[in-house]
Amino acid sequence: MSEKIRKTVHDDILDIIPQLSLDCVIFGFHDSTLKVLLLKWKGSNIYSLPGGFVKQTESVDQAAVRVLKERTALDEIFLRQFYTFGKVKRYDNEAVGQKLAHLIEESVFHERVVSIGYYALVDYEKVFPNPDELTEKCEWFDLEEVPELLFDHNEILDKALKALRFELSFQPIGLNLLPDKFTMPDMQRMYEAILAKKIDPRNFQKKILKTGIVIRLNEVKKGVAHKSPYLYRFDQNRYKEVLEEGGLFFI
Amino acid sequence: MSEKIRKTVHDDILDIIPQLSLDCVIFGFHDSTLKVLLLKWKGSNIYSLPGGFVKQTESVDQAAVRVLKERTALDEIFLRQFYTFGKVKRYDNEAVGQKLAHLIEESVFHERVVSIGYYALVDYEKVFPNPDELTEKCEWFDLEEVPELLFDHNEILDKALKALRFELSFQPIGLNLLPDKFTMPDMQRMYEAILAKKIDPRNFQKKILKTGIVIRLNEVKKGVAHKSPYLYRFDQNRYKEVLEEGGLFFI
Repeated sequence: MSEKIRKTVHDDILDIIPQLSLDCVIFGFHDSTLKVLLLKWKGSNIYSLPGGFVKQTESVDQAAVRVLKERTALDEIFLRQFYTFGKVKRYDNEAVGQKLAHLIEESVFHERVVSIGYYALVDYEKVFPNPDELTEKCEWFDLEEVPELLFDHNEILDKALKALRFELSFQPIGLNLLPDKFTMPDMQRMYEAILAKKIDPRNFQKKILKTGIVIRLNEVKKGVAHKSPYLYRFDQNRYKEVLEEGGLFFI
Repeated sequence: MSEKIRKTVHDDILDIIPQLSLDCVIFGFHDSTLKVLLLKWKGSNIYSLPGGFVKQTESVDQAAVRVLKERTALDEIFLRQFYTFGKVKRYDNEAVGQKLAHLIEESVFHERVVSIGYYALVDYEKVFPNPDELTEKCEWFDLEEVPELLFDHNEILDKALKALRFELSFQPIGLNLLPDKFTMPDMQRMYEAILAKKIDPRNFQKKILKTGIVIRLNEVKKGVAHKSPYLYRFDQNRYKEVLEEGGLFFI
């Protein structure tokens, strides 16, 4: 390849914080399934998480919002810092340099980088996946089908998934993921998709109702098998209250 | 002052990761009280948390262990990364530069620094507080008596305390903090000191016993008022198991 793309880290070296990056684990929920957004690097079969560097003029959180928006076109979404990855040798720098040698100068990878991990949970129907300058595709993967990723990104994904699952035990989720009106089985399937396990429906309903985040409507869902289940909507004020205070769900 | 101390960041600039630091919130528990370890800067009434920079040759975790050991002489202790502070302007850089102008060149503070927060929980009787080259005292403060701190360290302390309290709801604590044999009221006072609230003793005992982390001995504590309470010890294997798995305590 005659013209290598040189990475931002070289061109705008004064503009970004050196040796610091961020990685975004973007989980997508739709139709009872949990997926993750991956980037495919140009001219290769190599995948990684979306990520980027932090400009001197933006906070680390703002950088994460920017990266997320660039990759998904989504603006206001739930985004959470979960861990900073700071090993001396997070991955085999030489091997990564060789793998990407057709795109980036190998010397870029000589330097150690500390990376701040963020995760987001989005409705994947609302996302317009958008690759960056070094990648040719931005696509959703079922969690079980995630390939070997570049850098230490499989480890970052694992840790993000643990953080998300753990978070479910004390934070409400579902707003912007479920439709405006939903049934208790809809909500339960969302939890089951994220936790990757079955939940007892009677306990589930009891616990959710106890938090006060949902309101039962005088409407049932028609056209479903068996008896018609009631519809619910979120009580947005209560939802925000619980989000701020932290409530224990114990799902 | 004729000879200013020049900070490590200037002398060994190639040795450390630029614009990245860590701050350690070291909580001390003893005699039913929770305290925090602060440094008093030389020739001033200025206090801050202990902290430092990350060498190129050490992981961020290793840097935190090093700082902790330098300040407390403690080796193997519970240390946890809880949040990375990444605002563009974490504090008033100019004001800090002026406050410390008798010790450090003001230009050092022109640069933005992202800081990784760690907290530790130690038995303060086992600690030998040790100031660093820029500070003249390293001392324990009751939480209510913490003064205004340098940088954004009051914010970091608040966030660490929230993280510690939250952690109590799913992680066991007490090993290396309580004596080898202790009573249920001893253990309860430890929780109450950290949570800064009273706990119902009957529920407390039930919840702790359910986790299996303590074993009741065939011994009672003598010489205390009222009836003699049973002594307990930790089941170290079970304790470690719960620490790894995460168990929900709901204290």
